[in-house]
Amino acid sequence: MYYTKILGKTLRDVPQSIRTPSHALLHRGGFVRQMGQGLFSFLPLGMRVLQNIQRIIAEEMGALGGQEIYVPVVTPSDIWRRSGRLTWISELVPFRDRHGRELVLSPTHEEAFVELVRVALSSYREMPLFLYQFQIKFRDEERTKDGLVRTKEIYMHDAYSFHRSYHDLNNFFPKTFTAYKRVFDRCGIETFAGEAGVGYIGGEKSYEFLMPTEAADHAIILCDKCQYCASKEVAVGGKRYLREEEQTLEKVHTPGCTTIDNLAEFLNVPRERTAKSLVYNTPRGLVMAVVRGDYELGLEKLSGYLKVPAYRPATDEELAAAGLVPGYLSPIQVDQRIRVVVDDAVARSNNLVFGANQVDHHLINGNFRRDFDTPDVTDIALTRDEKICLQCGGVLREIQALEVGHIFKLGDYYTRAMNLTYQDERGASIYPHMGCYGVGLGRLMDAVVRSNHDQRGILWPDSLAPFQVYLMSVGRSLSVKKTAEDLHEELGDRALYDDRSDSPGVKFNDADLIGIPLRIVVSAKHLGEGKVELKERRSGAIHLVALDQISRAVDDLSARPPGGSGEIRG
Amino acid sequence: MYYTKILGKTLRDVPQSIRTPSHALLHRGGFVRQMGQGLFSFLPLGMRVLQNIQRIIAEEMGALGGQEIYVPVVTPSDIWRRSGRLTWISELVPFRDRHGRELVLSPTHEEAFVELVRVALSSYREMPLFLYQFQIKFRDEERTKDGLVRTKEIYMHDAYSFHRSYHDLNNFFPKTFTAYKRVFDRCGIETFAGEAGVGYIGGEKSYEFLMPTEAADHAIILCDKCQYCASKEVAVGGKRYLREEEQTLEKVHTPGCTTIDNLAEFLNVPRERTAKSLVYNTPRGLVMAVVRGDYELGLEKLSGYLKVPAYRPATDEELAAAGLVPGYLSPIQVDQRIRVVVDDAVARSNNLVFGANQVDHHLINGNFRRDFDTPDVTDIALTRDEKICLQCGGVLREIQALEVGHIFKLGDYYTRAMNLTYQDERGASIYPHMGCYGVGLGRLMDAVVRSNHDQRGILWPDSLAPFQVYLMSVGRSLSVKKTAEDLHEELGDRALYDDRSDSPGVKFNDADLIGIPLRIVVSAKHLGEGKVELKERRSGAIHLVALDQISRAVDDLSARPPGGSGEIRG
Repeated sequence: MYYTKILGKTLRDVPQSIRTPSHALLHRGGFVRQMGQGLFSFLPLGMRVLQNIQRIIAEEMGALGGQEIYVPVVTPSDIWRRSGRLTWISELVPFRDRHGRELVLSPTHEEAFVELVRVALSSYREMPLFLYQFQIKFRDEERTKDGLVRTKEIYMHDAYSFHRSYHDLNNFFPKTFTAYKRVFDRCGIETFAGEAGVGYIGGEKSYEFLMPTEAADHAIILCDKCQYCASKEVAVGGKRYLREEEQTLEKVHTPGCTTIDNLAEFLNVPRERTAKSLVYNTPRGLVMAVVRGDYELGLEKLSGYLKVPAYRPATDEELAAAGLVPGYLSPIQVDQRIRVVVDDAVARSNNLVFGANQVDHHLINGNFRRDFDTPDVTDIALTRDEKICLQCGGVLREIQALEVGHIFKLGDYYTRAMNLTYQDERGASIYPHMGCYGVGLGRLMDAVVRSNHDQRGILWPDSLAPFQVYLMSVGRSLSVKKTAEDLHEELGDRALYDDRSDSPGVKFNDADLIGIPLRIVVSAKHLGEGKVELKERRSGAIHLVALDQISRAVDDLSARPPGGSGEIRG
Repeated sequence: MYYTKILGKTLRDVPQSIRTPSHALLHRGGFVRQMGQGLFSFLPLGMRVLQNIQRIIAEEMGALGGQEIYVPVVTPSDIWRRSGRLTWISELVPFRDRHGRELVLSPTHEEAFVELVRVALSSYREMPLFLYQFQIKFRDEERTKDGLVRTKEIYMHDAYSFHRSYHDLNNFFPKTFTAYKRVFDRCGIETFAGEAGVGYIGGEKSYEFLMPTEAADHAIILCDKCQYCASKEVAVGGKRYLREEEQTLEKVHTPGCTTIDNLAEFLNVPRERTAKSLVYNTPRGLVMAVVRGDYELGLEKLSGYLKVPAYRPATDEELAAAGLVPGYLSPIQVDQRIRVVVDDAVARSNNLVFGANQVDHHLINGNFRRDFDTPDVTDIALTRDEKICLQCGGVLREIQALEVGHIFKLGDYYTRAMNLTYQDERGASIYPHMGCYGVGLGRLMDAVVRSNHDQRGILWPDSLAPFQVYLMSVGRSLSVKKTAEDLHEELGDRALYDDRSDSPGVKFNDADLIGIPLRIVVSAKHLGEGKVELKERRSGAIHLVALDQISRAVDDLSARPPGGSGEIRG
């Protein structure tokens, strides 16, 4: 490929709106262009990287017996109504066609896969069934991220497995886990896995593949001693309970104290002596969650405990309709139709300040069991980094990481909701248990660049590089030009040939920025001996290679794993 | 691949809603499933066919120097506003994200490609620039067709070329023409090319690749003598002009005569002695088109003449606002702000009946030039099959054909509208001229089945078949089973192994229905001689092949072009 002909040349600068270094490198190198908020195009160089990622994923899925299919990105609303998610997912875009049919621009594809399997499954012998696709998702995100990390249109790989039992799902799960780990290894990034929240995908358990990096979108809780690792939204840690002699419950006047900070200051008590109550919508009605004032509510923990998503805070109107007073919510004497879930730090501490469910009033010295009660006591508070590891007593710390893959044990939620069954050998009707698995290809490309670059540009792993060789010549001698042309011909689609008339410095800089693993320079200096210079982008190692050995040298050096180094054979 | 494990088994029957034979075969064979109106999923077998089609297209595009890219299917409204098409295209779905940003679910990608090239093009040396993608379109069609022919979500290949001049575009065009012709040849269908309307894509000229078939979506005008061929919407043909001695223009009372049929009957004149006037919205205001009563208006011809689309009939309100009386429209004494385009059969006939622009009244003996005038006289009537070929005088006939590809000479409409320029060698700012090219992959798959099936099922061409071999065994002997398993192992991904315990008859029928080119039957009868039966699905030819020659025989037979036959070598 002639570099002069390719669409998307290197750029010296990036627009001010591009702040993330990985996005800047991909923009400057001519890999991607942004078309709108969260909407990206891939230029020819970026497309080649994307296709390499896709090939690796398809190979690993095929090795697991995965069957590739296609379900549409626009799906009938009806399947979302049957799963119950039509109203839960705020990122979902519903619309009507000209005939008034209700459609959805799908943010994820559980419903579509279940629906396809429902109409196409013919025997228990097809299970375990492992299906995958590469397809677009559209998510109307509240906040997109700079670059390819959280876009609205997502070119995504997703896979769904169907099993005869939860036990079978559990047995299959480690295989997909290993396959995804291998995908990331082959893409040249180191990941670790951590338990994560399930979000609107739902299910019993989920794990994320995480890559530590700055300016990422995930807070992770890590224990350096025992390697405990989990997304902050579901991580567990030790808590300090506050117990003292019980005092009498008393209503006090707290004018305008609608926040914990105001309240603590006004009453001159520490925040951990207060409790805050939050009310959420769930598919089973309003739920009140009560955590101590020094903690944040963990929505994923709450949803996980409820087994349905707490998807939206109640509005003031919804609170009023339930007899609740916004700003002064309280679990004490609350309407019995509202389910109350209490964090263990609230239940096991005492003499806390609660709202009085009356404007400008609170209750002090509130105590669980004595003043209010519920069977729902569990951990629903976000773990902080100073907390103690529950597994080993070590100190937990919080780091930033990028999620590059997410896998879920869904169980039989979707198959029950959407009535997907099969008959087993004995004629019994069974709801399959599902797993689901997803990797955003653009996000993964961004992660690769975050982990594979230096000050001069990108360092593509051999497995993903758009070309194996960046070919260029120095000087205007006809024989140099002719040799470069001949090598281009010989290397074919393995080489990007910089045939510009620019200075060697410009070409060297662009070669480093674009990050192709090998660079060949044809110059008069070495051509006299019948040799050219071959440089490894990552290690900087330089080889002088005889012209008739070039093709072999390129293949030998490209076969090595990313980051490796070694002598040229032959 | 074990047939017992694959999702999507054969079916005996199809739902009543499936009427097209090709759709029925694809449904019964386990290739596709419909998820909603115009929304399709591809099962594993169908996906393999789709990928084979995609590979062929990508190879042909690569051979032409095409660069593969990705532009999003959701695009900012702004680019559609700049091209002017935001309001023209009724198939376009506009929506707003949660922040109120205006987006479009793209029915086509001219705007997105122009926008990408606008921000990424860096030099005239990049031209001619030939870009392509495989990407989804969503078209909110007025009427979808049964099956894969006209769906709402379309998995499509589209390509766009950018040239330094219209002359260069004209030189490049035959190359893409040949490449697409080769794509269809390689997919095993015979196509011919005809001039076609440009529709909302616009541009100067377009050609369709057509496959004659029943129940298709296109009417084609053909001359058997000179091979003239064009879509009915743009085909030209000889017309008979009606001239007689001029009579005096006269207003007559025609109560309730708002249709040509009513009018002709009431006045007792043949339809060809009447004229009908139709008013359309265009980006440049209302346009009145006048054709003789015995012709239909050709909207594509009108739009082609105007060089902007006549995209919607004027409503009664819009007519009234322009001083026009619905049902009695007339070019005679029409408001001068309304452009009038007159078909040549109206201009060159005389003493016709026109509306009087007054309820219940018409004018008889109207004559062009004498009673009304316009510089815009051209052919805007649909050609009928009894007309005379303008090229050779032969008889034209109308046939049904399926469009499988459509290529356009766009010219510089989009680059001007969206301000895409480059600087040439002399520093002049130039608007590139564009071509665009599109193939719907599902539609092409449907066309292949229409042209490649018999009463028993599909006859996949080697190039597209999901597997090369359908492998099965007859009888319960352990050595037969073992041999079949060994052959499955040896043939690997080339074979679909029917490992069911069903009767040979069931397996034979399913093999024929699915349409894999070669069928291998392992049976005790031939195994004694160390041979198996290899049958060609298309020709029915049967070969007895030694076990150690199977792999070679499969490759030899698969290498032949679709439909060929021959002896096994070696």
